[in-house]
Order: sequence, then structure tokens, then C-alpha cells
Amino acid sequence: MAFQIGIGPRVRKSPFYDATVKAGVAGFTIYNHMYMPVSYGDLAGEYDRLINGVSMWDVAAERQVELKGPDAFKLAQYLTPRNLSRFVVGQGKYVPICNHQGHVINDPICLKLAEDQYWLSIADSDVLLWAQAIAGEKKFDVEVREPDASPLAIQGPKAEQVVADLFGAWPAKLKYFWFRKAKLDGIPVLVARSGWSKQGGFELYLLDANKGTQLWDRVAKAGKKYGIGPGCPNYIERVESGLLSYGADNAVDSTPYEIGLGKYVDLDQRTAFIGKAALKKANEDGPQRKTVGLIVAGRALKSNEHRWRVFKGKRDVGMMGVVAYSPRLKKNVALAQIATSVKDDASDLTVQTPSGARKAIITAVPFI
Amino acid sequence: MAFQIGIGPRVRKSPFYDATVKAGVAGFTIYNHMYMPVSYGDLAGEYDRLINGVSMWDVAAERQVELKGPDAFKLAQYLTPRNLSRFVVGQGKYVPICNHQGHVINDPICLKLAEDQYWLSIADSDVLLWAQAIAGEKKFDVEVREPDASPLAIQGPKAEQVVADLFGAWPAKLKYFWFRKAKLDGIPVLVARSGWSKQGGFELYLLDANKGTQLWDRVAKAGKKYGIGPGCPNYIERVESGLLSYGADNAVDSTPYEIGLGKYVDLDQRTAFIGKAALKKANEDGPQRKTVGLIVAGRALKSNEHRWRVFKGKRDVGMMGVVAYSPRLKKNVALAQIATSVKDDASDLTVQTPSGARKAIITAVPFI
Repeated sequence: MAFQIGIGPRVRKSPFYDATVKAGVAGFTIYNHMYMPVSYGDLAGEYDRLINGVSMWDVAAERQVELKGPDAFKLAQYLTPRNLSRFVVGQGKYVPICNHQGHVINDPICLKLAEDQYWLSIADSDVLLWAQAIAGEKKFDVEVREPDASPLAIQGPKAEQVVADLFGAWPAKLKYFWFRKAKLDGIPVLVARSGWSKQGGFELYLLDANKGTQLWDRVAKAGKKYGIGPGCPNYIERVESGLLSYGADNAVDSTPYEIGLGKYVDLDQRTAFIGKAALKKANEDGPQRKTVGLIVAGRALKSNEHRWRVFKGKRDVGMMGVVAYSPRLKKNVALAQIATSVKDDASDLTVQTPSGARKAIITAVPFI
Repeated sequence: MAFQIGIGPRVRKSPFYDATVKAGVAGFTIYNHMYMPVSYGDLAGEYDRLINGVSMWDVAAERQVELKGPDAFKLAQYLTPRNLSRFVVGQGKYVPICNHQGHVINDPICLKLAEDQYWLSIADSDVLLWAQAIAGEKKFDVEVREPDASPLAIQGPKAEQVVADLFGAWPAKLKYFWFRKAKLDGIPVLVARSGWSKQGGFELYLLDANKGTQLWDRVAKAGKKYGIGPGCPNYIERVESGLLSYGADNAVDSTPYEIGLGKYVDLDQRTAFIGKAALKKANEDGPQRKTVGLIVAGRALKSNEHRWRVFKGKRDVGMMGVVAYSPRLKKNVALAQIATSVKDDASDLTVQTPSGARKAIITAVPFI
């Protein structure tokens, strides 16, 4: 189905909004109260650029929540079950955030900018409110606010060349999730080796919202000889790569153990963190659900608009969050959250598509 | 500009989604992580039905946050600066929610379902996370969750007749914001005299998400003889009526005093509430900004995609959140948040539209 999106003042525009319109954006979603491009109308071309070339994405909607002040580290550590004791300035870490019941409410990257300054680069939920509430009630001496920081992703195998032409040799030496501040023609940016694909690349966090078009144009110009073009987080590639999309792939009451994030939970650390008691119990009881890859039989499926149910024989065993036809595998690949009681070699699994049931088998992720 | 909206599994569908598609919905926004209709492609007809007839709206995206348990009242009162001491079962109250800095983070209606059960019917921000964080840190004995409750609004001067045909005489006797549970052909609903217009009407909170199409069809059938048709929160009428749209009309760091909600703040109550100290100070210092109505000179303006700046002479004095051409007044009406230093009879105000400056005068709201 095709519907228009209402464009009005309630939803924020990205600093790159005007540039994406000029570049031919065809569709948006809304993410963290901001418009985010989801299509330039050329699905095959956008996929190809990401897999074989280089693509640039307005992901400003990946907003930042800044924790700054004497208690910033205390708050950062209290917010996540991950042990941050060896976290150093310049480093980024993937830090799932749980509520007091141990349910994941967001899965940000945390950037350590200084001993007393952290950014949470968030998925689509109001971590700003969550962190403000916690800081306020704990009476932590910390300011929690949204800084002027808007990521522009450069992704794909040729991303490294584009970034080298822009900044020189040093970005290529950054380790995964590490970052450094820099200037580009006077535009302040933070360059991080990150991005929501497994094709390699960087995110340039624009640090002056007034310079969105300037940065976009500069990157487009540098990327021209590598065939750069506009794109967006690619739903096919992200399924092939098994990247979690918080909100799409999981039930809202999922523990980290139920969405493949158990390895980030350190129950043995001495420090308190939100959800510790609940997660201890969840770990002892064992997870009720698991996130798995599925290969769905039959001809190529279009992307799903709704979640689909997964059955083992006649029993409803969970939900499939996302399916995509992989051009590389020539198979339908899907991510699903199903009961742990279902064995990985179960032979009688089906997925209930709008046009009938399809056989499915569980497989390891990433698919490629 | 016209763009498509991405329809996928990450964003929730309303229980009325299928019915609105069948009814010819043309455009959506995303609100509380759920698709919400914003257009059926007939702006004039939709406005006319609301002003002169009756209109039905899928406003399921107006999600509920349930507070339930022994400490539910304690939490409800702690969340809002409004004094809830005389709150009774069956009543609804408009309860702005502030953070510890005294900034408004949402402006819900609170429904008291029982002495130990409250629903916050929210605007677009994650009050669920906010309330869970507060409850968790205060160690309140209360469950905070999203119940299965999805409002369907019936608005307009003939709404009362439609609801009388559906339920009998009692809904007409409900006072504003009051509610009662009922059944309609076995569909559980909560009937409230409320809705985001000033044309009168009700909201039927569907209490079983599986019965969305059934409820929609039942209301459409009952409304047929009154000329009912599909609609959505109407941006023209809401400006004429001076209804606040949280997120569109206000800066994110606004106190209640700066968005016309000062009357809901009770600083004298003995009970503690979040932001009390900050609001006391804000009240003593006096607000820096005020929300005003503007009449913008010149020919009919289209609705604004971006916020516009407001100037007094050459001085930037604030922002206009929304403008609409009022078919009834035959004038451009707008809501703006500007410096309190600007007098209400200021003669040299202009609004910076994309096609140049327009003169504006401050006027009382509602406009009609």
C-alpha cells in the first residue's frame, strides 16, 4: 500500500532534510520524532551501492542523549547492564538499556567523549526522558539533554576511500565504534567507524545543524568518483546481516537474553544497574524466547507490512518481525522471535504470510 | 511536498488500520510509535463534516499508560503539578507532566478508572518510560504498562446523536472528560466525553484490539443518517480553537507558564510532585515566553511544513508553530510562542514565511 506522510511542524526535520529532498528522497518514516528517509525509489540500485560501492544516508534521527557532569559516568553505568569499567575516551560501546523489569527499552551505542561526557546514540524511544527521570530521582549531578549532533552515514566497501579523501589516513585506523572529532571545510564533525550495516563505513556526526546541506554536498562531491549515491538503512542488507531493529524484531517485554543481547549483561559486576535483580532471575529461569534466523521457502517475498505468526505444526510459537528476499542468497531471509522450546532443527515450522503458510527452517545469523 | 510513508513492522498499526485503509485514508503520520491517519484527501469536506456534521477519527495512537496498584494514586499525583486531591472515579482531568527542570514533557488526560487504577491518555512522547523510571526509582508498588485501549473519536455537532443511537441517553449526560464503560454488540468500550476539537463529541476507547474493524463499521453504520465520514484531528479547526499540539507549538524546554498551562500548576499543595522546586522558581522569576494567537495578514496561506520565525521590527522574538487559513474567519490564524516582553498590542510584528515577511497582530485564543 502507498500512502503519503504528513509533513508539518510537529515532527522535526533533519539538518539534511533539504539536501535529501534535492537528492530525490521518495519516502520517509518518523524516528525519534524526526523524519528519516527510507527510500529514494530505487530499491535495487540502493542495495547495489551499499553492497558493491558506497552510499550516503541521512540518519540524523539516530538522536543523541548527552550525559554531562560529575556523575555522568555513574549514570551511564547505572543505565546499562554492560560493564563499562574499561571504557575509554574515544571509544564507543553497544549498551542495551533495560527497565527495572529487565526488559530492553533501547539499544544505543554509547560514545565516551570525556571522563564526564557521554552520548547515547539511540534507537526509536525516548531515552532522553528515561535518563532525565533516573538522574532526577537519583539526584545525580549531571545534565541530560539532546546535543546538536546529527549522524550522516557513509556505508559500503568504498566508504573508506571516500572518508580518506575527505579526512586523510587516520579514519581508516579507527577501531570499530571508535571516533574522533574533526573539521571539514570549517564544519565541525565527529567521525566514527560505525553504521547500521555490515558493509563497513563511517558515520559523520554533524555538530552544527545549520551546516547540513554543506556537509551533504561536500560528501556527495568527494564520493562522486566512487559512484556514491543517496540511500538509507537498507532493510534487505540488515536482515542478511542479522542486525537487530529495536521495535521491529522484538516483543516490548523482551529481556536481553531473548533478543540475542545476553552477552552484554554482566551480572557479576559489583556496581548496581537498572534491572539487575530482574535480569538475575531471568538468567536463572532461562529465557522464554529466542531470536533466530529463518529461511522461508518458496518464491521471492515482498517485505512485510505487518508481523507474521510462526507455527510449529499447529502451535503458535512466536512472531516473525521482518522478511526480505536476499538477492545474493536468492532466498527469503527472516528474523523471528520464537519460543525457546522450539529446537533449532525443527522440521515442521511454518510462517503465516497474508497469502498462506510457507515452510521455514531455522538458520544461523548473519545469513551472509 | 508529497512523500510516501514507509509501512513496515517497526511501527505499530492501530486496531482501526484496516478499516481506515478501506475508508480511503490518504496520509499518515507516526505518533507514539503508531500510524495515525492525517488525511483522507478531502481537506474541505473533512473540515465541513467536523464543523457542521459528524466525523469519525482513528486516534488509537493516543496511547494509554496505565498506573495500577496500591501506589497508583501516589504516582499519578507525583507525576503532575495539578492537584488531584478531588479526583473521583469516572472523571478525567487534563494533567500536564513536567520533568525535574519544570519543562513540560507531555500533556495527557488522566482517567481515574478505580481508586488504584489510572490511565494517562498521552500526546507523542514516551510517558510509559518516564512513569516506569519514576515508579522504579521511587520503589512504588504499582504496575506501569500500556493497556489494550484504543480511542476512536466521534466529533462534531451531530456526534451526540450518533452516540445516543449507539448507547442511549446516558452519554449525553456525561460531563466534559468524564467517562463510563459499556458494551456495543459485545465490543467492550469506554465512552468518554472528550476529543481533540472544540466541536463537541466523544471518544470510544476500544478495549479489545481484535475488534477494531467491527467497532469502526458499527459507528459508520449508526452515523450514516447523520452524514458521518472519516476524518482526523483537523489542523485548521484546532488552530481556530487554540488547542495545544504538544511538540508542534512549544519549545521543548517550555514551562507550563510558557504554553498557557500555568493554571494547572498548584504550587501550594502540600504533596510533592516532579519539578515543584523548578516551577516555584519559574513562577517567581516570571515566564520568558508566552503562547499567543496571531492573525497573519495577506492572502490565504497554506499550512506550514516548518516552523517560522516571528520578528518585532528587526528582533527575532520567537517562533510560530502552526498557521492555517480559517474558512470561517477568512483569515490566516496562527499559534506562536514569543518573548513575554512583546506587548499584546505590538504593531510591528512580522512572521517570516518562505515567500517573505507578513504582518501579524496578536489576538486572543480561541479565535472562534
